[in-house]
Amino acid sequence: MDANTYSSAGVDVAKAEHFVERLKSRSKRVGHEKLWKAAGGYASVVPIDDDLAMALTTDGVGTKLLVALEFHELTGIGIDLVAMCANDLICVGATPTSFLDYFATGKLDDNQADRIMEGIVEGCDRAGMLLVGGETAELPGLYSADHFDLAGFAAGTVRRKNLLTGDGIKPGDTLIGVASTGIHSNGLSLARKLFPPGHSMRKELLVPTAIYVKPAMEALCRYGQAIKGIVHITGGGWRNLLRLNPEVGFKIDSPLPLPQIFEHMLAVVNVEEMCNTFNMGMGLAIMAESHHAQIIQLFAEHGFTAAPVGEVTDVRGTVDVNTTWQKGSKKHLTLTGKGKG
Amino acid sequence: MDANTYSSAGVDVAKAEHFVERLKSRSKRVGHEKLWKAAGGYASVVPIDDDLAMALTTDGVGTKLLVALEFHELTGIGIDLVAMCANDLICVGATPTSFLDYFATGKLDDNQADRIMEGIVEGCDRAGMLLVGGETAELPGLYSADHFDLAGFAAGTVRRKNLLTGDGIKPGDTLIGVASTGIHSNGLSLARKLFPPGHSMRKELLVPTAIYVKPAMEALCRYGQAIKGIVHITGGGWRNLLRLNPEVGFKIDSPLPLPQIFEHMLAVVNVEEMCNTFNMGMGLAIMAESHHAQIIQLFAEHGFTAAPVGEVTDVRGTVDVNTTWQKGSKKHLTLTGKGKG
Repeated sequence: MDANTYSSAGVDVAKAEHFVERLKSRSKRVGHEKLWKAAGGYASVVPIDDDLAMALTTDGVGTKLLVALEFHELTGIGIDLVAMCANDLICVGATPTSFLDYFATGKLDDNQADRIMEGIVEGCDRAGMLLVGGETAELPGLYSADHFDLAGFAAGTVRRKNLLTGDGIKPGDTLIGVASTGIHSNGLSLARKLFPPGHSMRKELLVPTAIYVKPAMEALCRYGQAIKGIVHITGGGWRNLLRLNPEVGFKIDSPLPLPQIFEHMLAVVNVEEMCNTFNMGMGLAIMAESHHAQIIQLFAEHGFTAAPVGEVTDVRGTVDVNTTWQKGSKKHLTLTGKGKG
Repeated sequence: MDANTYSSAGVDVAKAEHFVERLKSRSKRVGHEKLWKAAGGYASVVPIDDDLAMALTTDGVGTKLLVALEFHELTGIGIDLVAMCANDLICVGATPTSFLDYFATGKLDDNQADRIMEGIVEGCDRAGMLLVGGETAELPGLYSADHFDLAGFAAGTVRRKNLLTGDGIKPGDTLIGVASTGIHSNGLSLARKLFPPGHSMRKELLVPTAIYVKPAMEALCRYGQAIKGIVHITGGGWRNLLRLNPEVGFKIDSPLPLPQIFEHMLAVVNVEEMCNTFNMGMGLAIMAESHHAQIIQLFAEHGFTAAPVGEVTDVRGTVDVNTTWQKGSKKHLTLTGKGKG
């Protein structure tokens, strides 16, 4: 059973993290001390003046693309692309404003491209962003005719007083979970292996990633004083919670309902590996010291299920999880280490 | 001879332009009227307040990647990636500040990745930008093990009074050309066909793209009143000149010296096709109504050859070119149509 791990699916997370660390040390040269320190490295925050900064981030949709190509369903992938970037920007407290896409293909297929673009435009609408630009590259020889790749870039702005640094998170704060729509856009290499072509769950992998921007910005606007951190659950699963503040840990004992796709996986994948890889039904998490009910209500008004799932603890660098996911039996897990850095 | 065209090399420019037009009409929805109109669409200019805006752009390096892989020389490609984005930002008058990269590969090769990153960091240094973030994606199944793609994203800021719109360009303004370092990062699909593996000129394709940011920003700072337009010569060759202002045309009768790589091409490619595809020795062009000598001197101080190459005319949408490139014989060309939009 434990052979169903992320690394066995061909993704060497440790190697990638090592590379990112080397990259950081190399790129942190003169000038980087000017950047504002923002929560979890979800976006880079570049000051324009003492009060105002640009927040910038980039992401792709990974091998979810391959599943989309299989089913000839490409619109959702455009939504995913925007979601991955926009949800990252809100984690530093920035208001997402602008999106650009990079679309590279072996041979430009108008129909294919149009459907992706429809998804990107739909994603931008959901996020309240403008699609302001992009690059469409036809690269025969680099991509095969029907293959392509997509990268997204998002920019927003943030005032110093609204910046989320994660510094204020403290034991006792409530952890509010916001429901995911499914697997979102992380862990697909493992999931594709678990649900091979023809599997009844394979198409479920394509449900587009939720875009949390509108309720999150409204929550920050109304209850900003109470919100100490926002976490987009991406690669690295629930360990993403540990990105914001090294001084604290988390206890999760009332997780949100598990989407069906993860229930199927539980039959064959170690639950700890799953929590370290997937969102497990929680696409976004909010650390709030008060106003939980109001924040939850606000997400509900935007159509998102949210609920208190646990709290911040003083057990540094640890996520303690109690679940009854597997046939009602209680299960205790301890997650450590970093999410995607 | 005319079979050596860009489209015969597998790139359907008309189709790509058609797609981009459709995309523009689709994405120009509510809100796009808020963007500041900037010269030639080189970057999107998103206002933050009445006086200040973010300038955003994205680009890739195209099939130059394939040549870099062939020679196992990847550092230069990183420089190219930064150059393609940074040189675009200066065309709207923005100060480039921040760069992010998207690097996707089939299997992460530390050595390969390190060399690309060295190039990106070097490019950022040359452009005075900070590498503030990036995404490294390991996508087995989408890329073959040793293949990868790169996309770049650059952001800068511009004050309303410094925005280049192209509106002020008028007949009689001097066109100053700034030398390219070679083919830069456009037209590689055709060039790779002309210089197949083993050809003595093939390695010349890898010379990194010049980064014009520092002298251009200094020129804008000192002689901004005189500078009416800046053009990065990318895909579409000299027709890029026509992107800034539909009311004018250009006459070029003293082109800069032709780099050796283009001299070799002239033997087998129609000269008009070349001017419509490559930079022909001029990587950047500046339209100035005065202070030509000072601007040229300033570029020289930064190590760039610059010279008056012609002037702005009232023949709308046309670039008239007089050359003695081919064995001393005079040649007159008329280019029309748009560069890459």
